[in-house]
Amino acid sequence: MAMAKEAGDEKIILITNDDGITSPGIAALVESVKHLGKVVVVAPDRPQSGMGHAITIGQPLRLHPSKLFGDIEAWQCTGTPVDCVKLAVDKVLHRKPDMCLSGINHGPNHSINVIYSGTMSAALEAAIEGIPSIGLSLLDYSVEADFSGAQQYAALLAEQVLHKHFDKHLCLNVNIPAVPAELLQGFKVCKQAYAKYQEEFAERKDPTGKNYYWLTGEFVNFDKGQDTDVWALEHNYVSVVPVQFDLTHYQLKEKLEKSLKH
Amino acid sequence: MAMAKEAGDEKIILITNDDGITSPGIAALVESVKHLGKVVVVAPDRPQSGMGHAITIGQPLRLHPSKLFGDIEAWQCTGTPVDCVKLAVDKVLHRKPDMCLSGINHGPNHSINVIYSGTMSAALEAAIEGIPSIGLSLLDYSVEADFSGAQQYAALLAEQVLHKHFDKHLCLNVNIPAVPAELLQGFKVCKQAYAKYQEEFAERKDPTGKNYYWLTGEFVNFDKGQDTDVWALEHNYVSVVPVQFDLTHYQLKEKLEKSLKH
Repeated sequence: MAMAKEAGDEKIILITNDDGITSPGIAALVESVKHLGKVVVVAPDRPQSGMGHAITIGQPLRLHPSKLFGDIEAWQCTGTPVDCVKLAVDKVLHRKPDMCLSGINHGPNHSINVIYSGTMSAALEAAIEGIPSIGLSLLDYSVEADFSGAQQYAALLAEQVLHKHFDKHLCLNVNIPAVPAELLQGFKVCKQAYAKYQEEFAERKDPTGKNYYWLTGEFVNFDKGQDTDVWALEHNYVSVVPVQFDLTHYQLKEKLEKSLKH
Repeated sequence: MAMAKEAGDEKIILITNDDGITSPGIAALVESVKHLGKVVVVAPDRPQSGMGHAITIGQPLRLHPSKLFGDIEAWQCTGTPVDCVKLAVDKVLHRKPDMCLSGINHGPNHSINVIYSGTMSAALEAAIEGIPSIGLSLLDYSVEADFSGAQQYAALLAEQVLHKHFDKHLCLNVNIPAVPAELLQGFKVCKQAYAKYQEEFAERKDPTGKNYYWLTGEFVNFDKGQDTDVWALEHNYVSVVPVQFDLTHYQLKEKLEKSLKH
């Protein structure tokens, strides 16, 4: 009877990412939180970085079972990170999980990156659905990155989100500095820094002489406040930005109500 | 000399969309605002609906000149709507335009659709760059939709944004009811309604017996306020929602600062 009760109480944790199901970051995330409940993985079958909040319209999606995580139920999906969350709820879990975790991304998703990030879009999609979520990113693009510090903080935060019921629409954008675990200074709740990419496209010619362009770009932070995620990360804090999906700019709304001519 | 002065003062208007450069909606938009300045079109070479804020990483982009708009300079791009804006600024215009218009989309982008919409992501990308922008959508998916009402309001609004300098980061999400022009009740500045899609995937079997899934879903509005875009559209107003790219949830930030354990 004890077992039955435990099974009934067990929390369901959905895990996805945007680097694809084979990336070391998602394996690190599964390892770090599997003691907190029943983990189910539904992740893209290939890298989907920069996909933003893309969804797949006009072509069908497929799910294939994966054995990459041993005993843990896992599915690889032909769609985007947002598709993975939608399909997981409707066709894999047949219910809303208690929490959704996305990551651990190889590379930063702080400040304006939240807009472009497939990692964060998966988390935001869960939050829209009323599933508390955390997107996690390590500031290291390397496939051989050291996730040990990120794993400690992922577990600490996931446990609190799972049990504290902050808000059913909670969505946290968490970034972890690429330093040894013992140098991390703890969580810092922040705002998104006002920053953007200064774009430069590298222009090249193909063998037939036609131009093509590679997106490059330098990250520029215009926000010198000490309350931003960029500041926190520079000072070895794990940055935590709560993210919303009501994009209304209320300040400009007031201004426009007064000045827009009909 | 008068001509030279005029040329120097002429406003540059960048136009893009997510339905692709051949869609009737973008042609309608070009027609409606070409008297306001020098229009340049840079749009995807194929439909990109649901692409959200996707950018193209890991493969190059191409631009091909287009004659679809007669004397108006136009380029079709192999990338996403956001790619189009980035490339237009860096490689076509070699400067920031005075305004960016995206659309007119075939189908609604009100309320939560703003998150999934390529139309709105292109507009938001411009706003991040400090280019005032408007994304426009008609509540009619048909390729034969009547854009005449939408065109009138597009021109009215574009002129004001171009000359009133509301804010360099202004981004407006504008939706137009699918009714004859004379029934439109004017602009209404609104907030984004809290609504979402109740997902259902249609499940089918391919000829080899394997499952595949089509995204479907019913739009459900949970927001009964009269200050929302959904309300405005139901009452034949043209809804105008100012959109922000600071996604920080400030209310939850305060709460978390008090309760998050380190």
